[in-house]
Amino acid sequence: MTPLEVDDVRAAARVLGGVAHRTPVMTSRTLGAGVFLKCESFQRGGAFKFRGAYNFLSSLNEEERARGVCAISSGNHAQAVALSARELGIRAAILMPEDAPPAKLAAVDGYGAEIETYDRYSMPQVEAGREFAERRQMTFVTAYDDPRIAAGAGTAALELLEDAGELDLLLAPVGGGGLMAGCATVIKALHPGARVVGVEARASAVTKRSLEAGERIQIPVPRHIADGQMLTQPGEWTFEVMRELVDDVVLCSDDEILAAMAFLFDRLKLVTEPSGAIATAALLAGHVRPEEGARVGVLISGGNVGLERFVGLIQTRTPSSSRPT
Amino acid sequence: MTPLEVDDVRAAARVLGGVAHRTPVMTSRTLGAGVFLKCESFQRGGAFKFRGAYNFLSSLNEEERARGVCAISSGNHAQAVALSARELGIRAAILMPEDAPPAKLAAVDGYGAEIETYDRYSMPQVEAGREFAERRQMTFVTAYDDPRIAAGAGTAALELLEDAGELDLLLAPVGGGGLMAGCATVIKALHPGARVVGVEARASAVTKRSLEAGERIQIPVPRHIADGQMLTQPGEWTFEVMRELVDDVVLCSDDEILAAMAFLFDRLKLVTEPSGAIATAALLAGHVRPEEGARVGVLISGGNVGLERFVGLIQTRTPSSSRPT
Repeated sequence: MTPLEVDDVRAAARVLGGVAHRTPVMTSRTLGAGVFLKCESFQRGGAFKFRGAYNFLSSLNEEERARGVCAISSGNHAQAVALSARELGIRAAILMPEDAPPAKLAAVDGYGAEIETYDRYSMPQVEAGREFAERRQMTFVTAYDDPRIAAGAGTAALELLEDAGELDLLLAPVGGGGLMAGCATVIKALHPGARVVGVEARASAVTKRSLEAGERIQIPVPRHIADGQMLTQPGEWTFEVMRELVDDVVLCSDDEILAAMAFLFDRLKLVTEPSGAIATAALLAGHVRPEEGARVGVLISGGNVGLERFVGLIQTRTPSSSRPT
Repeated sequence: MTPLEVDDVRAAARVLGGVAHRTPVMTSRTLGAGVFLKCESFQRGGAFKFRGAYNFLSSLNEEERARGVCAISSGNHAQAVALSARELGIRAAILMPEDAPPAKLAAVDGYGAEIETYDRYSMPQVEAGREFAERRQMTFVTAYDDPRIAAGAGTAALELLEDAGELDLLLAPVGGGGLMAGCATVIKALHPGARVVGVEARASAVTKRSLEAGERIQIPVPRHIADGQMLTQPGEWTFEVMRELVDDVVLCSDDEILAAMAFLFDRLKLVTEPSGAIATAALLAGHVRPEEGARVGVLISGGNVGLERFVGLIQTRTPSSSRPT
C-alpha cells in the first residue's frame, strides 16, 4: 500500500494555495465552546471534493491531460472534477446517476463538462466507472481511492488545526474514505492522542462493518438521504489507511441527519447537504459523547442540496424531529 | 447633530475585538469577480445588530447599567441587546411585536431577557418604545438612532474594506439607518470616490422618499416580508448622516427578495433573512448596475429567518421566480 504522509498533504496545500477557498471554521455555543465546524460547504464547487480533484488533476502529465479526464459521481466529485478541469484547461466527461439531484447535474453542466447518465441501482459504481473510462479512453479520476485525492482532502484538516488549535476528536463523514484517509493522516501525525471517528448512514454502515470484519465487505446500493455516501464498498487503498488510523465509525439515521440540517440552518445559518450534516448529527444525536472540555473538530463536508430538494427533505421529517428549534 | 467620524468606528472595533465575530467575506463567480459579500448572518445573534448593541451597552456608566436596559425590536436588535446584556452582566427587558417571527422570540428568551409583546399595527414603534422605557425605568437602547449604535455597525464596513480592498460601490439594507450611517461614514472617509447605495422594500420606500423630500416623512407600518426593515420613519440622527453620505436608495419587491434568498441558498450556501438578502436582490434584479470591473461590497445583514418561516416564504414565490436556478 502507498502510504500517505502529512507532508503529502502539505504539498497538496501548496498546490491548492490561492485556488481552493480557505473555508471558515465556525463555532456554536449550543454545540459547546470546544466544537469547531470546518465549513467545506463554502469550498469551490460547494464541497471538500474540489481539494482532491484539483490536486489529482494538477499531478497529471501532458499526455494524461491531453486525453482529457473522466469521472463517475453522484454529484460533488463530478462538480469538483468539472471545475478543476475547467481551471486547468482540461476536457472532462462525467458519468452521473440518472437520479442525481438536479442541482448537481446543472452545476456540472455549468462548469462545461460533458455528462452521461446511468442507473445506479442496476450497476455497481466501480464497474460503471471502469466501463466508462475504457470506452472514453480518458484519464480516470477516482472519487476517493487515491493518495492524491486523499492528500487534497486532508488539507481541510490542516486548515482546521491551524484555525482551531489542538483537537481531542475529529468527526468526519465517511463515504469512499478519501476525506477520512486524508484527515486522519493529518490528525494522527500532528496530534497523535486525538481520536478520529467516522460517521456514515445507518442504512449503509459499509465502512463500519468492513472495519469490524477486517476486510472490505460489499453491500447493495443503500437507500438513505445522504447521497454523498452511497457507496457499496470502501475504497481499496482508503480502507487500508482507515484500518490503521480510524478509531471508530458511528451511524446516523435519516431523521437524525435532517435534525442536524435543521439545526445548522437555524442556529449557524449554514446550508448543508445530508452528508454534510452527518458528522454534526452524530454529535447532536449523542452517538459521540466528547468528554467535558474536549476540543472537537467537525467536518461539514458539503452544501450542495439545492433549494427544492432541501425544502422537500425538511418536509419529510417525522413530527418528533420537526418541533421548532 | 453629533457627527460620526471613522475614528469612532475604529474605537468601536477595539471594543468589539474578541467579542464580535469577524464575519467572512464571500465571493461568487455568478455575481461577478468584483462582488464581495460581507456575511453578518454569521455574526453573534445572527445579524450585524450585535455590533451596535454591544458598543452601546459598553458605553453605559455604572448607574445606567444598574438600572438594566430595555429595547423595542421586531427581532434582531432584540437578540443583540439580550445577548450583549448577558455578556456584560446587565439585566434586559425587550418589547417585541406579537407577530415577530417565533425563532426571534425564542432566541431572545434563550439569551435570558424578559419579553413583553405589543401590536405593531396599532401603535408606532417609537411611541411604544418610549412608553415601555418610561414604565420600566430602564436605560433605553435605541435600535439605530445613536452614534454608538452606528459606530458599532460601521465596524462591519471596516472589516469589509480590510478583506476586500478598495470598493467602488457599497450596497447595504436601510431600515432605521444605523447600519447605513456607520458604513457610509467608513466608506466615504476611506474611499471618498465610492458610491453608497441603500436598499429598502418597495412597499416601504420611507428612506428613499424622505431623502427625496429632504425631510423625514412618516408612513403607516408597511407590509412586506423584510421584517428587519419595517420602520415608519427614518431615525432623526441617522437621517442627517444619510442625507450627507448616501448617494441613492433603490427598492426591491418581495419576489425579488425571495429570488435573492434562493440564489444565496443555492449558490453561496448562505441562510439569509429577507432584509439580509435585499442588497443582493438589488444587484440580481438589476436595480443597481455596477460598471464592468467595479468592486462592489454587499452587506448581508442577517440570517435570522427560522427554518419553518424560510420554507413558508420560499413556497410563496410566484412561478416566474421559482424556476430552478
